[in-house]
Amino acid sequence: MELDNIELLKQINSPADLRKLPVNELPRVCEEIRHFMIDSLSHNPGHFGSSMGAVELTVALHYVFDTPYDRIVWDVGHQAYGHKILTGRRDQFCTCRKLNGLSGFPNPAESEYDAFIAGHASNSISAALGMAIATQLKHEQKERKVIAVIGDAAIAGGLAFEGLNNASISPNNLIIILNDNDMAIDHNVGGLNEYLVNITTSRGYNKLRYDTYRTLRRLNLIDEDHRGAILRFNNSLKALLTKQQNIFEGLNIRYFGPIDGHNVINIVNKLNDIKEMTGPKIIHLRTIKGKGYAPAEKEPTIWHAPGCFNPETGNRITTTDDQKPPKFQDVFGHTLVELAEKNEKITVITPAMPTGSSSCFMMERFPQRSFDVGISEEHAVTFAAGLAKEGLQPFCSIYSTFLQRGFDEVIHDVAIQNLPVTFCIDRAGLVGEDGVTHHGVFDISYLRCIPHMTIAAPMDEHYLRHLMYTAQLSDRGPFAIRYPRGNGSQVDWKCPMQEIPIGKGRKIHDGEEVAILSVGPIGLVAEKAIQKAREAGVNAALYDMIFIKPLDEEILHEAAKKYKRIITLEDGCITGGFGSAVLEFMADNGYSPRIKRLGVPDQFIAQGTVQELHRLCGIDEDSIYSTIIGNW
Amino acid sequence: MELDNIELLKQINSPADLRKLPVNELPRVCEEIRHFMIDSLSHNPGHFGSSMGAVELTVALHYVFDTPYDRIVWDVGHQAYGHKILTGRRDQFCTCRKLNGLSGFPNPAESEYDAFIAGHASNSISAALGMAIATQLKHEQKERKVIAVIGDAAIAGGLAFEGLNNASISPNNLIIILNDNDMAIDHNVGGLNEYLVNITTSRGYNKLRYDTYRTLRRLNLIDEDHRGAILRFNNSLKALLTKQQNIFEGLNIRYFGPIDGHNVINIVNKLNDIKEMTGPKIIHLRTIKGKGYAPAEKEPTIWHAPGCFNPETGNRITTTDDQKPPKFQDVFGHTLVELAEKNEKITVITPAMPTGSSSCFMMERFPQRSFDVGISEEHAVTFAAGLAKEGLQPFCSIYSTFLQRGFDEVIHDVAIQNLPVTFCIDRAGLVGEDGVTHHGVFDISYLRCIPHMTIAAPMDEHYLRHLMYTAQLSDRGPFAIRYPRGNGSQVDWKCPMQEIPIGKGRKIHDGEEVAILSVGPIGLVAEKAIQKAREAGVNAALYDMIFIKPLDEEILHEAAKKYKRIITLEDGCITGGFGSAVLEFMADNGYSPRIKRLGVPDQFIAQGTVQELHRLCGIDEDSIYSTIIGNW
Repeated sequence: MELDNIELLKQINSPADLRKLPVNELPRVCEEIRHFMIDSLSHNPGHFGSSMGAVELTVALHYVFDTPYDRIVWDVGHQAYGHKILTGRRDQFCTCRKLNGLSGFPNPAESEYDAFIAGHASNSISAALGMAIATQLKHEQKERKVIAVIGDAAIAGGLAFEGLNNASISPNNLIIILNDNDMAIDHNVGGLNEYLVNITTSRGYNKLRYDTYRTLRRLNLIDEDHRGAILRFNNSLKALLTKQQNIFEGLNIRYFGPIDGHNVINIVNKLNDIKEMTGPKIIHLRTIKGKGYAPAEKEPTIWHAPGCFNPETGNRITTTDDQKPPKFQDVFGHTLVELAEKNEKITVITPAMPTGSSSCFMMERFPQRSFDVGISEEHAVTFAAGLAKEGLQPFCSIYSTFLQRGFDEVIHDVAIQNLPVTFCIDRAGLVGEDGVTHHGVFDISYLRCIPHMTIAAPMDEHYLRHLMYTAQLSDRGPFAIRYPRGNGSQVDWKCPMQEIPIGKGRKIHDGEEVAILSVGPIGLVAEKAIQKAREAGVNAALYDMIFIKPLDEEILHEAAKKYKRIITLEDGCITGGFGSAVLEFMADNGYSPRIKRLGVPDQFIAQGTVQELHRLCGIDEDSIYSTIIGNW
Repeated sequence: MELDNIELLKQINSPADLRKLPVNELPRVCEEIRHFMIDSLSHNPGHFGSSMGAVELTVALHYVFDTPYDRIVWDVGHQAYGHKILTGRRDQFCTCRKLNGLSGFPNPAESEYDAFIAGHASNSISAALGMAIATQLKHEQKERKVIAVIGDAAIAGGLAFEGLNNASISPNNLIIILNDNDMAIDHNVGGLNEYLVNITTSRGYNKLRYDTYRTLRRLNLIDEDHRGAILRFNNSLKALLTKQQNIFEGLNIRYFGPIDGHNVINIVNKLNDIKEMTGPKIIHLRTIKGKGYAPAEKEPTIWHAPGCFNPETGNRITTTDDQKPPKFQDVFGHTLVELAEKNEKITVITPAMPTGSSSCFMMERFPQRSFDVGISEEHAVTFAAGLAKEGLQPFCSIYSTFLQRGFDEVIHDVAIQNLPVTFCIDRAGLVGEDGVTHHGVFDISYLRCIPHMTIAAPMDEHYLRHLMYTAQLSDRGPFAIRYPRGNGSQVDWKCPMQEIPIGKGRKIHDGEEVAILSVGPIGLVAEKAIQKAREAGVNAALYDMIFIKPLDEEILHEAAKKYKRIITLEDGCITGGFGSAVLEFMADNGYSPRIKRLGVPDQFIAQGTVQELHRLCGIDEDSIYSTIIGNW
């Protein structure tokens, strides 16, 4: 790092160093952090806009609070780069999102300053509440402050609401920062921009309020039998009906704001004002995504994660190559439009990922039949079930790792009723740089146990199209199609679509002695390994199973009879996965070939490129090759 | 049914018959339904209080709306007995909750009047919203009304909030009935009972309001790009900040209420007033749980599901037998108190099930360390993770079927951080009369794929105690202990507790040729079958594996070497379950014994007694016996 204009930042190797500075130096620190981030992220890409917008908040939090003794719980964590830079990780920041480098998200395994895991939205309030209550139960000598930082999109999730709703469970001193960067806000509705809530930071008033509450508790006038009720939605509802000030107040959470999120000295003052107050409280900060970098302020969606760029000009360094196969996401998006043009029952649901999932093409073409439901995966699934119950054919596009949030709804609302919801499970398998919280490796295992489910994985874009076509042909019950993040393998992806019989795989070619049964694009890697093995004199068969459930039993009978050794291959966890399904078939049918299951081992996998992680997990070309020619 | 005072009810074989009656006959219909329910439920027990409280609401809904063309979506469905009685199922009502009889919950597979599945709380708004929007997209000639009926406890769930939050997604005419039976309400907080919101049912006002909205949409003044934003929490927040009337109004949902939920004629009038209004709306009804039956009104918790009772006296027919082994739940509850007395790090979390799970003992003894978080399983798990992150040892007591709601949180918030949260998974396995939505059969499969998890199942109460003791000994990471609903097998359950090494099972006895590997109390059934087989000359070994993850590899090596045939046995789904774990071990270690997996097949299982369902699934004594002596 050759930057010469980070004089102050260079002296800050921990928040303790930051706290030594006079408060009037803080704007300069913010400026230097921005400078450092722009420089670093221009050549090592990451989440840009959120962290740029949270610089002042981050500096103020570490300045006012005694981190790491006090806990900052980030939500999602896109915005935590400044936090990493201030907490002793400046020099490693260039390794962010790389194998063996820093995680792109807060992770306690990386630093004691990362108080809780982040990645999936909306968990910060519940986690921080637990931490705040724990600190009280432990009767620690010095009170430990716990601060949850949550964005305006994440606070819409059901989990966040449950957390808020429970924040009055018992006396606690939780501090919630609502980092409102306006991105999720329609400027045409509501009136926040024109509205200013009086900031009442009077310590006297608040102390009286909570002293009274605690006394009532102590005297059992608010008795334990009814404690549960304090948690309920009704409480907020009733408070609202009785015209209390707002929802947070209704929930017994003091509200302060909105505050300018880019005036660091003012934020410091406000945090100092409220930090010793008892009781839960929420501070509402207005911030600008991409703040301090004009191109990012102008186009926040693009600059959420812009890739490499020229820091001087703001020109993004993109390689548009028509000869490169498109992303699976785009094939999904365009194919859905194609199908929807002919089948008016088709609708699409995405929980806050229209661009990432390429559902946006459908939204442009058929806005009435497209639903971005925000960060609410549970609702996305049940809402889709409602549509399907009345005869529509919803395509529910959700990232594998986020579909975990809708697991119960898949079982209860979709599968029991055998409804024709097609789950387009995006970012299935190892996702690369987003790391441990984002790998989509569990879906085969968690969906396979659900009755009525069909689960498929296309090897390439053509098969993605065929499967999407097949799913909407008639009411087939729940139908999951899993495909990975990123580019496919076919430049000429726009093939005519054809029906694939449910549970029918295909033999790519015969072999001798050993056969590979694979699902998904990892089969293309297997094909390369097989070619290499053939050169070494071992001739392995390859079957693309296409369906994980139901399995192609014809193929399995054939493989069991013909091959002594069978390799199962999947970009997903091997515990309970596709390989286990093959084992179940073999056991149930009295076969006993030798079977090696290749897939993601029973560990959490950190970040790296997809290729690096495949090698780590033993599902890269070399590992498959070794398994083919191995003696087992 | 020999009741002579159900003259009117006898003539009602469908809601069409009900709608022929003059409105002033409706109170009489309500009275007769109550009479019928008291009589029937006194000898065929079920959920009493909720249905008694919803009689007027049920009659009014079917009177005003054109069911089944119009859709009533019940939430949870405890309250839907009156609905069943009115919709052609009066004569079958005596079969409710029995094998091949009526389900205890609404189920579309049973009747066209059951518009959507119910059982798990908080799904009705999302489902009904999907149905309401589907009816618009389909351009049906006659507008189809969709009504969600949700209780005051269920509306606290995150899914319900997401549903509410999305109800202004696009013009829809959803009707939400908030059935507020006061059970979840602390009379000491809030002021609902003293507060009366003006009921504004002016059609003119509402028509104007929604006509304006639709026009703006049509003119693209509320443009599609920003549509997502309408869904967000911020919307309601902002609306509140701008002092709009209440949370529902803030969400663009018209609010009417509260209304006396036991004045059927008034409810009919109100429903008629609002039924043709455009836009989503919520009607708030105040009802009394157990209404019309004095003992139930007095003690609503007991009369939620009272068992058999004398309808004349209100005396519940209970058999208290000290010689009967206690419920697993009570052993859990008392043991937790015992442990918590010595280990002050122990806390307990229950999502709205303090009585059902017997967490109530802990709540009485250590209220400060006990948390009933209401119906919010996601929060329950993440909150527990927060406690654990700060060094406490939370026991999270959740029914298996409801833990599905917290699946993502188990992975993301607990397992990645390897936190010492003990999941006491109650009602694991087939639960009997509650049926398809409530069986806890998926947990082994969905937890087994998660790294860092320990999963155990005690064969009896002593082992439940040993496992609970073991879980809290030191920080062992996430530890799941699954046990079934109902009574155990040991009268003398209060044994001294001892540590069980993680992943160590036990050999109950040796055998010849065939061995049974079992987990959980189903092993006791296996033992009976083995005894019977021994009499028939076949000597089977029995291993109680105790741990599903990690498996006892020593036992597995021994079993694989010694026995040609191995039977795996579990009260859970066989797809991806414990048996599959055994198959994985055998494949990984190059063994090839014949293996038969006994467990719940890959189907949804309806209601019946646990014994009946075990027989149906082939895990009863006879089926196990047949497998032992079978030729395979």
